[in-house]
Amino acid sequence: MIDLYYAPTPNGWKISIMLEELGLSYNVIPVNIRAGEQFSAEFLAISPNNRIPAIVDRAPADGGAPFSAFETGAILVYLAEKTGRFLPSDLRGRSTTIQWVMWQMAGLGPMLGQHGHFALYAAEKIPYAISRYRDEAARLYGVLDRQLGKTSAYVAGDYSIADIACFPWAMTHKAQGFTLDDYPNVKRWYAEVRARPQVQAGLAIGKFVKEPFDEESRKIMFGERARSCWERSSAWSSW
Amino acid sequence: MIDLYYAPTPNGWKISIMLEELGLSYNVIPVNIRAGEQFSAEFLAISPNNRIPAIVDRAPADGGAPFSAFETGAILVYLAEKTGRFLPSDLRGRSTTIQWVMWQMAGLGPMLGQHGHFALYAAEKIPYAISRYRDEAARLYGVLDRQLGKTSAYVAGDYSIADIACFPWAMTHKAQGFTLDDYPNVKRWYAEVRARPQVQAGLAIGKFVKEPFDEESRKIMFGERARSCWERSSAWSSW
Repeated sequence: MIDLYYAPTPNGWKISIMLEELGLSYNVIPVNIRAGEQFSAEFLAISPNNRIPAIVDRAPADGGAPFSAFETGAILVYLAEKTGRFLPSDLRGRSTTIQWVMWQMAGLGPMLGQHGHFALYAAEKIPYAISRYRDEAARLYGVLDRQLGKTSAYVAGDYSIADIACFPWAMTHKAQGFTLDDYPNVKRWYAEVRARPQVQAGLAIGKFVKEPFDEESRKIMFGERARSCWERSSAWSSW
Repeated sequence: MIDLYYAPTPNGWKISIMLEELGLSYNVIPVNIRAGEQFSAEFLAISPNNRIPAIVDRAPADGGAPFSAFETGAILVYLAEKTGRFLPSDLRGRSTTIQWVMWQMAGLGPMLGQHGHFALYAAEKIPYAISRYRDEAARLYGVLDRQLGKTSAYVAGDYSIADIACFPWAMTHKAQGFTLDDYPNVKRWYAEVRARPQVQAGLAIGKFVKEPFDEESRKIMFGERARSCWERSSAWSSW
């Protein structure tokens, strides 16, 4: 059994989708990031970066004590290796998949996160910052489009943790003012991934209820404590 | 033999340090990022994200054709698995190391990169953005400090690719206006890693010559094409 510390954000969805794809049993432990639950000492012990999602595997493969993991890229690799799925075992397929997971973790996620912050959430509209991150986001969609034009179907060949990492962030495209018509290969891939029942099931976990995004939430998420829960794990919960 | 497409930046140093730690033979192929060489079609074929560093392994373990890899986190994992070093093989040590590599890739690197851009490079000084990324950088140094206070010596237990990933970014602390006196565990770790002869050898590769950071370089790096080479791979070369 796996405990999933979760909120319905792009990073949260990566792991709920992965668990659904794997058919593993898991408990969802909601973390109310708007109320600041991610700052509790209990959560910090599991997620040293104060971010959701995190997991505790109560039956790790080595038979030992429960094992916790944070950072979505690392959780995806952990679960893939636990089950032998969605991460090829041959040297080339394996490294190519990890390369694109890293690209999502280091590029697509953080930069869409910054664009979302400046374009949608920040009270102060700063043209330089909005333009900087819009351009970078567009560039990254272009990189993904080129890659998906080379491979026949998925980001790193067969359907893998690279797709599971990228897809939830691509879901932000409309709210962020991008159209996939500009990226035809991404558009084709996006529709295919979205149609997977396991993906739909993962997205349905803790489905967002439109709570008011009030001043108190804004303070928690973007005020003094904001730096502990910027967009990677928080702001997208308003979608 | 490994070809290393390289410029002397924090991300470049990760891989030159790793190769020195491993004692592997490698060719350094300088990529002049200020002149825009990272945009060539030849480089793009190796590094689909147009970023340095990238490697081509001319003798991959499967005996097949040369194999290229991009994204420093993925290159570190690839080289660790090629040699069986700096990434534990047991489930816990392995995942913990990958978790902290991911944390560096998704957090420490991109956020120090954004702080560097707004605090040091952007022609327009934007208090909101500078403050946002300074606070986040300080938070991340705090996370690293807490972690290094828990482990006896290194980020994920024994010296590993997690240290090799984090160290070159920690080298930016002074230029970015941080002092490690605020982070005593980081300070102790930083001195230990820095003292390693292999780290010194890695940092000496293509040691930066203080070329003028002129208007043309600024245009290439922060102008219209900037979005293809933001700080992750470029701006730090001026240090």
